[in-house]
Amino acid sequence: MSGHVSLSSDDGDARVAVVTLCHRAKFNAMSRAMWRQLQAVFARIQSGDWRCVLLRGEGAHFCAGGDIAEYPSFRFATASLRAFHEDEVWGGLRAMLDCDVPIVAAIAGNCMGAGMEMASACDIRVAADDARFGAPIAKLGFPMAPREAQLVARVAGEATAREMLLEAAVLGAGEMKARGFLHRIEPPDELLPHAQERARRIAALAPRAARAHKQLFRALNEPSALSSTASKAIENIVNGAYDYADSAEHREGIAAFLEKRPARF
Amino acid sequence: MSGHVSLSSDDGDARVAVVTLCHRAKFNAMSRAMWRQLQAVFARIQSGDWRCVLLRGEGAHFCAGGDIAEYPSFRFATASLRAFHEDEVWGGLRAMLDCDVPIVAAIAGNCMGAGMEMASACDIRVAADDARFGAPIAKLGFPMAPREAQLVARVAGEATAREMLLEAAVLGAGEMKARGFLHRIEPPDELLPHAQERARRIAALAPRAARAHKQLFRALNEPSALSSTASKAIENIVNGAYDYADSAEHREGIAAFLEKRPARF
Amino acid sequence: MSGHVSLSSDDGDARVAVVTLCHRAKFNAMSRAMWRQLQAVFARIQSGDWRCVLLRGEGAHFCAGGDIAEYPSFRFATASLRAFHEDEVWGGLRAMLDCDVPIVAAIAGNCMGAGMEMASACDIRVAADDARFGAPIAKLGFPMAPREAQLVARVAGEATAREMLLEAAVLGAGEMKARGFLHRIEPPDELLPHAQERARRIAALAPRAARAHKQLFRALNEPSALSSTASKAIENIVNGAYDYADSAEHREGIAAFLEKRPARF
Repeated sequence: MSGHVSLSSDDGDARVAVVTLCHRAKFNAMSRAMWRQLQAVFARIQSGDWRCVLLRGEGAHFCAGGDIAEYPSFRFATASLRAFHEDEVWGGLRAMLDCDVPIVAAIAGNCMGAGMEMASACDIRVAADDARFGAPIAKLGFPMAPREAQLVARVAGEATAREMLLEAAVLGAGEMKARGFLHRIEPPDELLPHAQERARRIAALAPRAARAHKQLFRALNEPSALSSTASKAIENIVNGAYDYADSAEHREGIAAFLEKRPARF
Repeated sequence: MSGHVSLSSDDGDARVAVVTLCHRAKFNAMSRAMWRQLQAVFARIQSGDWRCVLLRGEGAHFCAGGDIAEYPSFRFATASLRAFHEDEVWGGLRAMLDCDVPIVAAIAGNCMGAGMEMASACDIRVAADDARFGAPIAKLGFPMAPREAQLVARVAGEATAREMLLEAAVLGAGEMKARGFLHRIEPPDELLPHAQERARRIAALAPRAARAHKQLFRALNEPSALSSTASKAIENIVNGAYDYADSAEHREGIAAFLEKRPARF
Repeated sequence: MSGHVSLSSDDGDARVAVVTLCHRAKFNAMSRAMWRQLQAVFARIQSGDWRCVLLRGEGAHFCAGGDIAEYPSFRFATASLRAFHEDEVWGGLRAMLDCDVPIVAAIAGNCMGAGMEMASACDIRVAADDARFGAPIAKLGFPMAPREAQLVARVAGEATAREMLLEAAVLGAGEMKARGFLHRIEPPDELLPHAQERARRIAALAPRAARAHKQLFRALNEPSALSSTASKAIENIVNGAYDYADSAEHREGIAAFLEKRPARF
């Protein structure tokens, strides 16, 4: 069993869907199975009657990233690496972004890599004041996939995305509040009640207006037509995005992590 | 008499135009007449010799939103609803956005809905430290019009726009300063002197350079060409933007407000 | 001798390039020679093996702006003014933006005009807590060149760019941290050690991933195709951008600066 994503209704208000990332032994790191379940869960929400979604992690963490133990089985070949990012990861994130129902993220503990990506696909982000944020994959020897990095840069801001990706910086909740990524921070014990209260407040408001707002924000974020320069730049990025699969740097980063030693680049 | 928008010159510096939203009994809520006057006032400023504009509300508030008492007369039919938003409201906001003269907003008390929209069309925003900001129209059962929401999201940031529109959140001046919407907060008594000082400082600087800067910022904010996906998404939004006119949700929201009771959605 | 830009390797980690703006008598104001050297230095870094760049000013300042003593010799004719901005200034900034190696700015003292532009072309910005930021060229009687203003508005935020350009506002490091332009502020004595530590941390991470991230951010910032409205607006700006060369306002602003008196506009 490598984790799962559960869907239920909030005990106190059945109009609120509760989505829980469950992979407790690994701080809710996302396995491939979990990305596929995430997609299925949000597709179900989109076609249901819920008026708000509360997204959380099981236990003391939101999501510590990807499940690195799985990586050697598919990351070192370009085709399977591309399929992982474009189909599984982006499939899950796109289902969140395509969802017309407002999503509140309750972020405790670690919010790293995949955690940052999922949080960026939510509408409202509240966090425990001791939560930690980052995407330190430069330590793992590979770059964030283009669409995932674009999402994080858009929502967390490009300055923060550059710091996380180029410097492997890990930032505290207070800093992420100051930078505008978080709407609110609360003491850990009050995080979940606070997020529930927000979700229930949204559920009591006009549901058709909420869907119209979500559709509008999505339309405003649709990519513009590209200039020829931009088109060429993006094409180069997309075509070459997974060429690093078999690189020494990539293999060293992941080997070092699994061997619990610092990588030597 | 349902309010008016006045234009005068600053007593201390005739190069500063003072625009005042006057509808005191309703905290300067914008009536249809006021939107039309706003457009005329900014057209006059654009063709005049003023070097800076100070925008304020009469009395203790900037603007509490739209004049909801007028709503039943035109909001429940798609054509008149569309004309209101696209011609009257956007006519006023576009005149502000098209103005080459720098605009300083002095924001006291309530800055809601239409107030957020007008503030977003200003260059410099200073507020009393007890001012309150929001766009709680989800309580009224309808979404913000697309171009208005796009303007607010661009200037206040998408995270704040989502919180205001999806959750009907009302935020204090300190929070809006921290989020980068406000340039400065001052004690209520010092708001107007501070805003005047800023406007006079701008009026003493190079006026041709100011117009060039405003034209440049406007050009940078012109919409890009749309990709086919974006084009379709935007078209759907624009075509369907006012279909809610006769919906139960819309009627209930406005009826509840006018009957001073909570809406049941 | 009107200043120079030096390139060396960090004493403690040869993988870090150190670029120093040297024009001490003028707080490192950029002369035309320095802009050309900046371009050459970043071209050399781009084709070299360094893994990170630390950009700083010699002595107590980062960069106080342009070298205004040179201005009368070329600014009052449209052709030479255009060549200065489009070839020399943008040549230097473009070399920074085109560089695949992460750049950390260590900002002490004054960071004005050209300083804001170079800082905006960096990935990580750390500053002394008493550093000061602005672009008060409205006092000099001319607007910031379009591409330079676009860069500053994108990175510092449009609200801050409007305040700096329309109001000639000068902001402290704490305020620029709060607004998201700076990643960190430190006491003056600790600025350089802190920036070095960041640069060395980046140099120890996966270098191929860093280059991929920089290329991706660059591609995401490539301009989109323009709509016909935007196209016309931008064309007007670009064609007319330097028409002010011989204007009375421009001549007065620069004359007043050189004569150390307030300008009268």
